[in-house]
Amino acid sequence: MVKSALLSEDGEITITDLDEPELESGSVLVTTLFSEVCGTDVHLVHNQLIGVPYPIIPGHVSTGIIEKMNGTVREIDDCVLEIGDVITFLDVHETCNACWYCLVAKETTRCPKRKVYGITYSANDGLLGGWSEKIYLKPGVKILKLPSVEFAKTFIAGGCGLPTAIHAIQRAHIQLGDTVVIQGSGPVGLMCAILAKQSGAFKVILVGGPKQRLNIAREFGITETINIDKLSSKDRLKQILQLTNYRGADVVVEATGVPSAVKEGFDMIRDGGTYVIVGQYTDAGDITINPHLDINKKHLTVKGSWGSDFSHFYLAVNFIKTYHNTYPWAKMISGEYSLDEVPQALQQVMNHSVLKAVISPNK
Amino acid sequence: MVKSALLSEDGEITITDLDEPELESGSVLVTTLFSEVCGTDVHLVHNQLIGVPYPIIPGHVSTGIIEKMNGTVREIDDCVLEIGDVITFLDVHETCNACWYCLVAKETTRCPKRKVYGITYSANDGLLGGWSEKIYLKPGVKILKLPSVEFAKTFIAGGCGLPTAIHAIQRAHIQLGDTVVIQGSGPVGLMCAILAKQSGAFKVILVGGPKQRLNIAREFGITETINIDKLSSKDRLKQILQLTNYRGADVVVEATGVPSAVKEGFDMIRDGGTYVIVGQYTDAGDITINPHLDINKKHLTVKGSWGSDFSHFYLAVNFIKTYHNTYPWAKMISGEYSLDEVPQALQQVMNHSVLKAVISPNK
Amino acid sequence: MVKSALLSEDGEITITDLDEPELESGSVLVTTLFSEVCGTDVHLVHNQLIGVPYPIIPGHVSTGIIEKMNGTVREIDDCVLEIGDVITFLDVHETCNACWYCLVAKETTRCPKRKVYGITYSANDGLLGGWSEKIYLKPGVKILKLPSVEFAKTFIAGGCGLPTAIHAIQRAHIQLGDTVVIQGSGPVGLMCAILAKQSGAFKVILVGGPKQRLNIAREFGITETINIDKLSSKDRLKQILQLTNYRGADVVVEATGVPSAVKEGFDMIRDGGTYVIVGQYTDAGDITINPHLDINKKHLTVKGSWGSDFSHFYLAVNFIKTYHNTYPWAKMISGEYSLDEVPQALQQVMNHSVLKAVISPNK
Amino acid sequence: MVKSALLSEDGEITITDLDEPELESGSVLVTTLFSEVCGTDVHLVHNQLIGVPYPIIPGHVSTGIIEKMNGTVREIDDCVLEIGDVITFLDVHETCNACWYCLVAKETTRCPKRKVYGITYSANDGLLGGWSEKIYLKPGVKILKLPSVEFAKTFIAGGCGLPTAIHAIQRAHIQLGDTVVIQGSGPVGLMCAILAKQSGAFKVILVGGPKQRLNIAREFGITETINIDKLSSKDRLKQILQLTNYRGADVVVEATGVPSAVKEGFDMIRDGGTYVIVGQYTDAGDITINPHLDINKKHLTVKGSWGSDFSHFYLAVNFIKTYHNTYPWAKMISGEYSLDEVPQALQQVMNHSVLKAVISPNK
Repeated sequence: MVKSALLSEDGEITITDLDEPELESGSVLVTTLFSEVCGTDVHLVHNQLIGVPYPIIPGHVSTGIIEKMNGTVREIDDCVLEIGDVITFLDVHETCNACWYCLVAKETTRCPKRKVYGITYSANDGLLGGWSEKIYLKPGVKILKLPSVEFAKTFIAGGCGLPTAIHAIQRAHIQLGDTVVIQGSGPVGLMCAILAKQSGAFKVILVGGPKQRLNIAREFGITETINIDKLSSKDRLKQILQLTNYRGADVVVEATGVPSAVKEGFDMIRDGGTYVIVGQYTDAGDITINPHLDINKKHLTVKGSWGSDFSHFYLAVNFIKTYHNTYPWAKMISGEYSLDEVPQALQQVMNHSVLKAVISPNK
Repeated sequence: MVKSALLSEDGEITITDLDEPELESGSVLVTTLFSEVCGTDVHLVHNQLIGVPYPIIPGHVSTGIIEKMNGTVREIDDCVLEIGDVITFLDVHETCNACWYCLVAKETTRCPKRKVYGITYSANDGLLGGWSEKIYLKPGVKILKLPSVEFAKTFIAGGCGLPTAIHAIQRAHIQLGDTVVIQGSGPVGLMCAILAKQSGAFKVILVGGPKQRLNIAREFGITETINIDKLSSKDRLKQILQLTNYRGADVVVEATGVPSAVKEGFDMIRDGGTYVIVGQYTDAGDITINPHLDINKKHLTVKGSWGSDFSHFYLAVNFIKTYHNTYPWAKMISGEYSLDEVPQALQQVMNHSVLKAVISPNK
Repeated sequence: MVKSALLSEDGEITITDLDEPELESGSVLVTTLFSEVCGTDVHLVHNQLIGVPYPIIPGHVSTGIIEKMNGTVREIDDCVLEIGDVITFLDVHETCNACWYCLVAKETTRCPKRKVYGITYSANDGLLGGWSEKIYLKPGVKILKLPSVEFAKTFIAGGCGLPTAIHAIQRAHIQLGDTVVIQGSGPVGLMCAILAKQSGAFKVILVGGPKQRLNIAREFGITETINIDKLSSKDRLKQILQLTNYRGADVVVEATGVPSAVKEGFDMIRDGGTYVIVGQYTDAGDITINPHLDINKKHLTVKGSWGSDFSHFYLAVNFIKTYHNTYPWAKMISGEYSLDEVPQALQQVMNHSVLKAVISPNK
Repeated sequence: MVKSALLSEDGEITITDLDEPELESGSVLVTTLFSEVCGTDVHLVHNQLIGVPYPIIPGHVSTGIIEKMNGTVREIDDCVLEIGDVITFLDVHETCNACWYCLVAKETTRCPKRKVYGITYSANDGLLGGWSEKIYLKPGVKILKLPSVEFAKTFIAGGCGLPTAIHAIQRAHIQLGDTVVIQGSGPVGLMCAILAKQSGAFKVILVGGPKQRLNIAREFGITETINIDKLSSKDRLKQILQLTNYRGADVVVEATGVPSAVKEGFDMIRDGGTYVIVGQYTDAGDITINPHLDINKKHLTVKGSWGSDFSHFYLAVNFIKTYHNTYPWAKMISGEYSLDEVPQALQQVMNHSVLKAVISPNK
């Protein structure tokens, strides 16, 4: 039997023993190492996503050790996987490679058949989420090897926020020398700040809070921070203008989840600049904008960034491999929790008392 | 003395005789052929732009015949201009080629020193607008030759809307095979529709009115039109979806001036598509949008397009030269007016009873 | 039994009766309508491609009528196909959607598992080429419906050259107002010329021969042509410079197959312009270039364009649907040939006495 | 009198006293701090550039202290300059802002009127080069302030190679996660390597020599180096393939000046990758390429990168300001030389015994 944490429609967590599945040809059974508690999981607790087949096993970004396989299974570039390999996998599955979005627009994040581990699979369909002792990787799930258990933990420190931020920063088209403002100091915002710096920005300004998160950001090399608990919206804007020669930033990336931040962000951008909106993952309300002043006269470019695909996941793994020793990754993880401690983990993420909680189902 | 139409702050037109200027070295005096009545002129009558030094001589897009020059004056590519040449000129002047926007961002439309004939020059500064028998071209004004008086008239048929639309369509990055919706059937919208077709769109849908304008659009080859006088916002959207395989258009260009059109436009775009906002030239009010549904989840790209520079003006002249015989340009011009008839011309543009009015000061 | 034309390694065509295959689940059997004789087939006759599993059934771009299916088979966007549908299909198959080129670089034309009907499948593997009464479409082959047999013929008039040219023109990033030179007046060159015009070029100059091909080009609206049989390389260049204000073209597309044309093309491009090389499909020899004069000092962009993927094929079908009545497509096809006449068809393509030959195996 | 080093057509250096100029309105006289000995100066000694008006005062990238001004002179963003300010200036002058290349193509590096201090101005025209006690900045020369004399020296450590590399790296369109090979470990190559890393590359491989230069590169954080003195062309390629999963690099930048390196570079790039050629500043001979294998089948993008404009210069100054303490800039400068020591400085640059020599005319 496999111990798993199930989330119900009304936000309850139940620890349940589920059957170990029979392995289809091409499938893999993984012993879970670490699985993330992501902001999305908070939305799932509050039933804010559409079409979620509760009960589910949450945990979409996870790492583990291969325990069993049926047949030969390969990583990208045809490397054969073996029992005992430390791996992670792309939570997104079943993009069809046959529809208009997959093949013509080449935007697989908008494929209507797309499924996501830990979010759009039901617990009734199997061990398809990371808050469980074992995870069942269906045939065709995209797997990548990690060098060691230590890297597996670092990868979870990056977590869902890393590929999400990679996609957002790609959309931002940062140019050498740009000044970039990141709104939001959660996992996505912090990763965006680091990646903006790595993508050619000469100055990165992180607007967020609370203070502890900004302190962590500084340890990741983000020296310019603005604490929203200390400065009003008006004063934040004033400071941004002072830091940008009174023009505004070349690029602003929104990673807050708060609609009012979007309106505030428009004012932080220079004429002809770019605004990427990645934090509005659920419908948290409307905003009022002035299409003349905010967009047309400013000659602005505004881009939404939705989800991520294999390329972002692949880059995330490579990023961790390359910069494993560069950044203090351990600072990202505020606590490790067993399956029985999932409710506490969720609670602490919800009240922002931790930056990131990690579930270790076999600890 | 030079007869000119002056516009005052309270929207009054007065016909006045002004002195003929002395020519500085490098300047040109032009006998006006045709000058446009543009939507901007309606905004000027209503005092909706900021910092206009009334009284002004309106008329920013104009053509004329060179009457006098002081010294050798050259067109682009060093061609020497001569008395009697039929010409047009870029209304934008004095972009400084020395500031951050000119030299680093390379967005001269945002240069703070930029001045515009017929808009930001006062009548007290000279004959710096087209609704006048003569126009004074200051040293350095960018001049382009036209093949004949007939082409000068065709160029005014394109008018200010043509370079504005060229800039907007460049911003739209239309790809071969795209379906494009244009919102608005005024001069900018109609030019956008033609240029979208010429830029690789397989299907162009023009949403506008009244019926006569849509009929003209059809004579320019825009076969798909939706009449806003006949279909409600909801039904317009329904029809767009039917015409786009229920995905929405790849690109939507807003060219209406009406804020509510912007909100409507968001719904017409497919996930991952592009929205260009070019019609919100003045502040006509706010709109409410949902940053999750309208931008983030849709993975949208929204771009403002402001003004135009020499490259757009140059392309506009080349467009007219190349497609002079392809399109029924004369249909664009609903009437020609003398200086004394300026008030009627303005009246008819304001009540949309004409598509475009042209001032012929020396007729 | 199914009558098919087999091509051997030494270039011999043999008409053979092959068994009709059993249909796997998801597969389709098609009665061939038209299959193209493409320049690639000439290379196949001369054994100029690497790794071709002779004997093969040539014919990679083909149309047909669905005769049989095993199970429900769908077109893109989930439309269910039916017996009697007129269809075409993407010759490229088995791109793996699992390797680095498919998923990270998103360049499926470089997927190492990619197979192509009529080229990289052996006749021993089945009816996997179009010069046969029937074609077997393996499960997963990408199929698109055509409105009628008439459209099927028009689609073959576009043929392999159309998606190839779509890819090349996408690579060219043609801007509104560009002057574009196309080198080569075969099917790819002619399609490139039309598409360049449709993509915003104001002037398209086709350099090729013989005279009959240039005449056909003119019927497709390409008014500027330079006949290589009449003008020397030096004089061709002179004429290009005269037509481009002595700067050279903004974009040049090579579609000749002749290495020396590449060297000639470099001289036709303006400083800062773009050169797309699409015609060097096989190794026909080296060229000498000067990296200082030809590339570095010219600030040139040179792009190779290899193959095509589903998006190009999809656009090709839509292009034919949209512009079926706009162009004199029938002029592209110089002759229709039965399977027994394949050697004559090949002969006439080889000596350039026809623009395009079509095989009609069931005529 | 102003002591200056003059270079004659036959490569002789003569130290001469020239008159101090009268200052036109808007001009500035600068006391030289540091001026670079650049690879271009070696080409000038060997008379390898076309149209150089010998004798010239070499030294195109220079810094100094403002000694005199005629009237108010401004930096970008309207900051007024003052006597005693430490400054540098853009060597490129007189781009016309009136021709097709300046205004339509927006490629001012191809403006036919462009002049360059230290290269295309004659010593007969005045103090228009940096190997002189004083430099005369004509009206309109673009000046930027530096924080101190120390920064002036760091700026010269970056030198001409920094804006040149900025332009090349912009052309390279480096994506997050790319593997980049830089061919050449001179000043341009080293700057390219650093900037590639700063622009999102996860892996940067520097191919060059001799050993001391590669050691300096390692101190700048470029850990992967290949020594051309130790490995044959074949073995270098082998190593690149091993480091790139046998695909080749995503981007290769040529910064060698040696034509054969271009041919070698083609083999180092993955299919679908990008090659930027920036090192072929003079005509050093032809190369043989295979357009099928090297470009078409590889689906390659090859770009020349010529010169630099104000934006690159501005970014270079900002780069130095931002990363002044990050890199060991002093290691770039192997020696400081007086005007009398110019011949030795040139000699040591020519025989590659130093990485960079700096002239301090007032030392």
